[in-house]
Amino acid sequence: MSDDTQALSPEEQFRQQALDYHAKPTAGKISVELTKPANSAHDLALAYSPGVAEPVREIAQNPDTVYRYTAKGNMVAVISNGTAILGLGNLGPLASKPVMEGKALLFKRFAGLDSIDIEVKHRTIDEFVDTVANIADTFGGINLEDIKAPDCFEIEKRLIERCDVPVFHDDQHGTAIVTAAGMLNAIELQGKKLEESTIVCLGAGAAAVACMELLIKCGAMREKIYMLDRKGVIHTRRDDLNEYKQLFANNTDKRTLEDVIEGADLFLGVSGPNLMPAEALKLMADKPVVFACSNPDPEIKPALAHEVRDDLIMGTGRSDYPNQVNNVLCFPFIFRGALDVRASEINDEMKLAAVDAIRQLAKEPVPEEVLQAAGVTSLSFGRDYIIPKPMDKRLLPRVARAVAQAAVDSGVARIDMPEGYMQD
Amino acid sequence: MSDDTQALSPEEQFRQQALDYHAKPTAGKISVELTKPANSAHDLALAYSPGVAEPVREIAQNPDTVYRYTAKGNMVAVISNGTAILGLGNLGPLASKPVMEGKALLFKRFAGLDSIDIEVKHRTIDEFVDTVANIADTFGGINLEDIKAPDCFEIEKRLIERCDVPVFHDDQHGTAIVTAAGMLNAIELQGKKLEESTIVCLGAGAAAVACMELLIKCGAMREKIYMLDRKGVIHTRRDDLNEYKQLFANNTDKRTLEDVIEGADLFLGVSGPNLMPAEALKLMADKPVVFACSNPDPEIKPALAHEVRDDLIMGTGRSDYPNQVNNVLCFPFIFRGALDVRASEINDEMKLAAVDAIRQLAKEPVPEEVLQAAGVTSLSFGRDYIIPKPMDKRLLPRVARAVAQAAVDSGVARIDMPEGYMQD
Repeated sequence: MSDDTQALSPEEQFRQQALDYHAKPTAGKISVELTKPANSAHDLALAYSPGVAEPVREIAQNPDTVYRYTAKGNMVAVISNGTAILGLGNLGPLASKPVMEGKALLFKRFAGLDSIDIEVKHRTIDEFVDTVANIADTFGGINLEDIKAPDCFEIEKRLIERCDVPVFHDDQHGTAIVTAAGMLNAIELQGKKLEESTIVCLGAGAAAVACMELLIKCGAMREKIYMLDRKGVIHTRRDDLNEYKQLFANNTDKRTLEDVIEGADLFLGVSGPNLMPAEALKLMADKPVVFACSNPDPEIKPALAHEVRDDLIMGTGRSDYPNQVNNVLCFPFIFRGALDVRASEINDEMKLAAVDAIRQLAKEPVPEEVLQAAGVTSLSFGRDYIIPKPMDKRLLPRVARAVAQAAVDSGVARIDMPEGYMQD
Repeated sequence: MSDDTQALSPEEQFRQQALDYHAKPTAGKISVELTKPANSAHDLALAYSPGVAEPVREIAQNPDTVYRYTAKGNMVAVISNGTAILGLGNLGPLASKPVMEGKALLFKRFAGLDSIDIEVKHRTIDEFVDTVANIADTFGGINLEDIKAPDCFEIEKRLIERCDVPVFHDDQHGTAIVTAAGMLNAIELQGKKLEESTIVCLGAGAAAVACMELLIKCGAMREKIYMLDRKGVIHTRRDDLNEYKQLFANNTDKRTLEDVIEGADLFLGVSGPNLMPAEALKLMADKPVVFACSNPDPEIKPALAHEVRDDLIMGTGRSDYPNQVNNVLCFPFIFRGALDVRASEINDEMKLAAVDAIRQLAKEPVPEEVLQAAGVTSLSFGRDYIIPKPMDKRLLPRVARAVAQAAVDSGVARIDMPEGYMQD
């Protein structure tokens, strides 16, 4: 370590490490490589002119053969307009590029999918949708990322209608799937039932709406959900709600977090740092479930939460606390399964199958290598282990298989499950 | 070799080889790989959340740093709408994918550039231009490919205006650069001068127009050029000419190939197989230059041409005859040079620098490895060796350096030439 580095604070050191990681020895995190020999003149005659005319003719006659002769079937585009980058806000498409390349890196690392980032500059939602729809056939699937609400809802809906390949906004559905898996396991451990639970959702953006919609599909009652935006509780007398928030307008006189948190069973924070006071936590029902997912600083610090209540189960977005709610538990594998049976979309059945597969895995004995990677000596299903660890290699076969099977069963798969697909 | 294969004709065997090459062991020819470690939780914290926020903030403050922290600066998009695939015609975007992946493969193989294909579906030229312009910032440069004339002229012109990164239609300019290099060397060997030469161009598509425009920039006289389309000579009394053909409307009474070929010094065929009769070749001036570039079957077969005339210098698009006019001599290196000095465009100065660099290399002694790859014992500048071989590794430093220097000298480079850039 150089003297320069020693003079830096830990935060500054990490910042410099992150910049160096991106810049050295080459710029960025991904490259495109050849999967076929290209050394001799004969190789090149097969790869390009004149040999390449043969697969061209085949695809022109039978478009499905594009999956046999090109990389399409294993290629996922990570597409953003940079309007909601991480928690940093609307910094534009160019600034979103490191995040999108990072997502591409995770697709490859966790599911072996080839993935390339595309940053889109546009004036209107129409123009964004047209642009993505026009290039969609290039890829096997499209992962939308870091697009601000409520635009993201309209954009995803229209792209799903227009594209032949699956379109999936991970900030919505990836978050929702992992959150639902963790919450359902936590509720089970607390001995409660989702349909009887009162739920407070602090935050009303893309992730909040998607999480609540998916919980409802899992059995939660819409009228028992209280969603809050910056102005407080979303209720039926407000006239400032977009159509997505309107779906969660509760017919209630309650107006503040303190009003709704009293007696609540579940809290989901997808808002900002320290927005859940310890006093509010005290008001929750017995054996509450608290997911404080604001990153890097949660709505309430785990240490403080446990100080106030010893009967809660807690999740956060951080890797340095138990129960990390991390999209990487889902998105690589849901695309892996969808692409492997050429699903035309990622439907609710597939999302719910992913929830179940993630839930189930957390209840099984944990292999030694996962313990080592997590730096612990044991892990077993309970308040400090309600969802699998990101480094758990069983996620790939389990989630991908469940998703692919659900695609086949729900009729959106274009090919059958390969024989013996993704055995552990 | 199996019994099945033995039963096939050589053409059928090659066809099967080409299909197998594309399909096995994995589909397609390219993949996306990681260039940074992604094993430990610490690696992932740098590559994605929370570390990735640091380069995001840097790029938001100073957009130029996108070249330091992402793969943009080494990434070329190969973009097509599939309206003119090889010589096969308008088969649509999906069918063009193997060609575009092949081009991506060549970019990597010859110049180390990361390259990804994008196939665009669209209704109007406006929509194509909007789509490509909207995603252009993702890449360091854009190679347009297999777009039909005359759309390609309008599309390229408008994209050059709208994009911050170089846009280059290789079917036009790559072809023109290599053709000009070969023709200029051939004319020199024949003891003629370009400005005094009569030129016949059979074909009036993208390559034809670009070749003639570039030859004019090299000194050819527009009034000494006769261009022919399917209807014969393009002349000033025709009222069926698009604006690009109009530029070559010759004020002449000549109407047919036979009319214009008499006494011509140069013939360029960018049309179709066997469209140049031996009788026409006989009518050309002494010491003619004949480039029959239709692929795979040239406008006149070299054996026939040499039978008719023993004073000609001939080029074709084929690798199995001398003097192969092959875009791969140019496009990987012109993008390499342009990207390495962050040129905002690929201007005429850079194209002419590429022509000169390719010409000059053909006049130098040929290294042993190039002879071996070409399967010959000697090669020296002369009628059977007027342009370098595609496998000549000196092309990369020579052409890239010349192009980068021309970009700097003409004021379109955004950074200086790196010290000691691309020494042989």
